[in-house]
Amino acid sequence: MSSHPFADTPEPPYVAVIFTSVRTPGDNGYAVMSASLDALAREQPGFLGVESAREGVGITVSYWTDQAAAQGWKRVAAHLVAQRRGRDVWYEDYRVRVATVEREYGRDTSGLDAG
Amino acid sequence: MSSHPFADTPEPPYVAVIFTSVRTPGDNGYAVMSASLDALAREQPGFLGVESAREGVGITVSYWTDQAAAQGWKRVAAHLVAQRRGRDVWYEDYRVRVATVEREYGRDTSGLDAG
Repeated sequence: MSSHPFADTPEPPYVAVIFTSVRTPGDNGYAVMSASLDALAREQPGFLGVESAREGVGITVSYWTDQAAAQGWKRVAAHLVAQRRGRDVWYEDYRVRVATVEREYGRDTSGLDAG
Repeated sequence: MSSHPFADTPEPPYVAVIFTSVRTPGDNGYAVMSASLDALAREQPGFLGVESAREGVGITVSYWTDQAAAQGWKRVAAHLVAQRRGRDVWYEDYRVRVATVEREYGRDTSGLDAG
């Protein structure tokens, strides 16, 4: 994670991949795999940024220029995970949701009150 | 948060509101406000579920039947936050992204390998 926790995304539309997971107990090579995935994501065409937190449940949202870029990343990630030990070793359960971001606002753009 | 950390969302499409934040130091009434917000969200028309984690950055993704429901929630949340002490007291910075979920898959639906 960078010191700036927010992905520096452009004007919408762009694509968000919301990955929600519950880990299995123990590391089992997860930390190394996770760092590899993170480094690999940043090299992918169409990568815009990533935000991540774990507190019981883990939520990682990666942002992509378009659906094709998000699909490309999915193939690369699946390949890496399969090469290593496989997702069942690391994740008790997970969900992946692919979404098109239509609006974005923050504290400096009138925030929760804005349309 | 429920013991089951994943939102029980239906077949897409539906709407995800991705709220990413960095807290200010200290509680300042945040815990009470946050619990109120959570309880209030669950009563809103069109609420589907919520997933949340904080680890440096906080990520809360709430899910809604449609854009109108997400907009309705935004107005209710803004009102509650304004009634209490205001978002600048609790958040150093934040981003809100409103997105339409087009695809969802999990471990039991062939996961990272699926289209």
